Amino acid sequence: MPRIHFQQQLAELKDKILAMAALAQQAVQSAVEAYLQRDEALCAYVKENETAINTAQRELDEMAYELLAKEQPMAIDLRFILAVIKMNADLERIGDQSMSVAIRARDMIGMPEVELPVDFEAMGEYASRMIRTALQALLDGDAQVAESVREMDDEIDRMNRLAQAELLALIQQKPELTPQALHALLISRNLERIADHATNIATDVIFWIRGADVRHALSLASD
Amino acid sequence: MPRIHFQQQLAELKDKILAMAALAQQAVQSAVEAYLQRDEALCAYVKENETAINTAQRELDEMAYELLAKEQPMAIDLRFILAVIKMNADLERIGDQSMSVAIRARDMIGMPEVELPVDFEAMGEYASRMIRTALQALLDGDAQVAESVREMDDEIDRMNRLAQAELLALIQQKPELTPQALHALLISRNLERIADHATNIATDVIFWIRGADVRHALSLASD
Repeated sequence: MPRIHFQQQLAELKDKILAMAALAQQAVQSAVEAYLQRDEALCAYVKENETAINTAQRELDEMAYELLAKEQPMAIDLRFILAVIKMNADLERIGDQSMSVAIRARDMIGMPEVELPVDFEAMGEYASRMIRTALQALLDGDAQVAESVREMDDEIDRMNRLAQAELLALIQQKPELTPQALHALLISRNLERIADHATNIATDVIFWIRGADVRHALSLASD
Repeated sequence: MPRIHFQQQLAELKDKILAMAALAQQAVQSAVEAYLQRDEALCAYVKENETAINTAQRELDEMAYELLAKEQPMAIDLRFILAVIKMNADLERIGDQSMSVAIRARDMIGMPEVELPVDFEAMGEYASRMIRTALQALLDGDAQVAESVREMDDEIDRMNRLAQAELLALIQQKPELTPQALHALLISRNLERIADHATNIATDVIFWIRGADVRHALSLASD
């Protein structure tokens, strides 16, 4: 029963990409928390988490590659595996971006703490919600949910532009806060990039589902 | 002779990824040139180029997908096609980053022109060279050349950190130059991201070639 075995492997691949996504989401939340609390231990945790993400990415890539090589899957399964390979790369980069946030957060521990005009908690939660929603779309095979992630991207772009404008104004009013403001500017940019990766994941879900739609349309046509 | 046809298709895929890489490299060079010359027409060109890159990416992805679906390639060819799919995504994002540079360059046309302590020409050339070298590694199937790209990444990280430090100092000395300095800061970051994508491409080349090495090792073992 090689096909049943193959379906089990596909299910395992799905579990693995979900575990990878959980690590990535954890990374984003911990990195923002590390910034908000100026918590050095959390910064170190994000760094360790990033190593775990890299290992998980390699394992997942190898498993996807083995499946492609040995099972020679057709149409919809092939699209799913390709989507997983692409998502995997985006999740790994979410880990990278989170580590950048954590490194900046750690740098800021040595600086005087000042009020900055950026709501990083809201940005972090929003980016995190985009990742979660993209994964929900994958789980449910729901193109509409995936589309909603793509629409969410505009809001975080707006937040990022607002943060840039506010920080620019702050620097001009209080040049002595420039070091903190520049870090904040780049953290805002990291969070916007994380949202971009979530958007890429949603696009991959749509690519996979469109394959399903095409197959469905063909099977209807042949009725 | 379906296998000969398949080899032709693989060669076509290679041509297409090289054309895609040429577009991406053109985007980087034009974006930096647009910034250096404050040239609005070049900014518009980068935007059009980005549309062309997106179209090329979709076509290449579909071609790779068709090859995987219809030909069910084995080992080394499979690895090559997967590497092309990943490179394709990185080249598309180089196009995105170049467009960000061009948009910032256009925004700066309206601002007073000032001397900024960043050598964008050198950074752009360096990033461009990394893309070119990664592609050379693909053409020659040369893991050592691909490794050299990964080593080059440290230098552009250094350039980016230096640019950040210099711009920070500038803002503190001359707060009135903050708008231009922030744009420069983010352009520097865009170029550093472009170099990251070139590094990813080099890593994909190594993934592909390692497959070849494994196959080679196996064929030696079976002698």
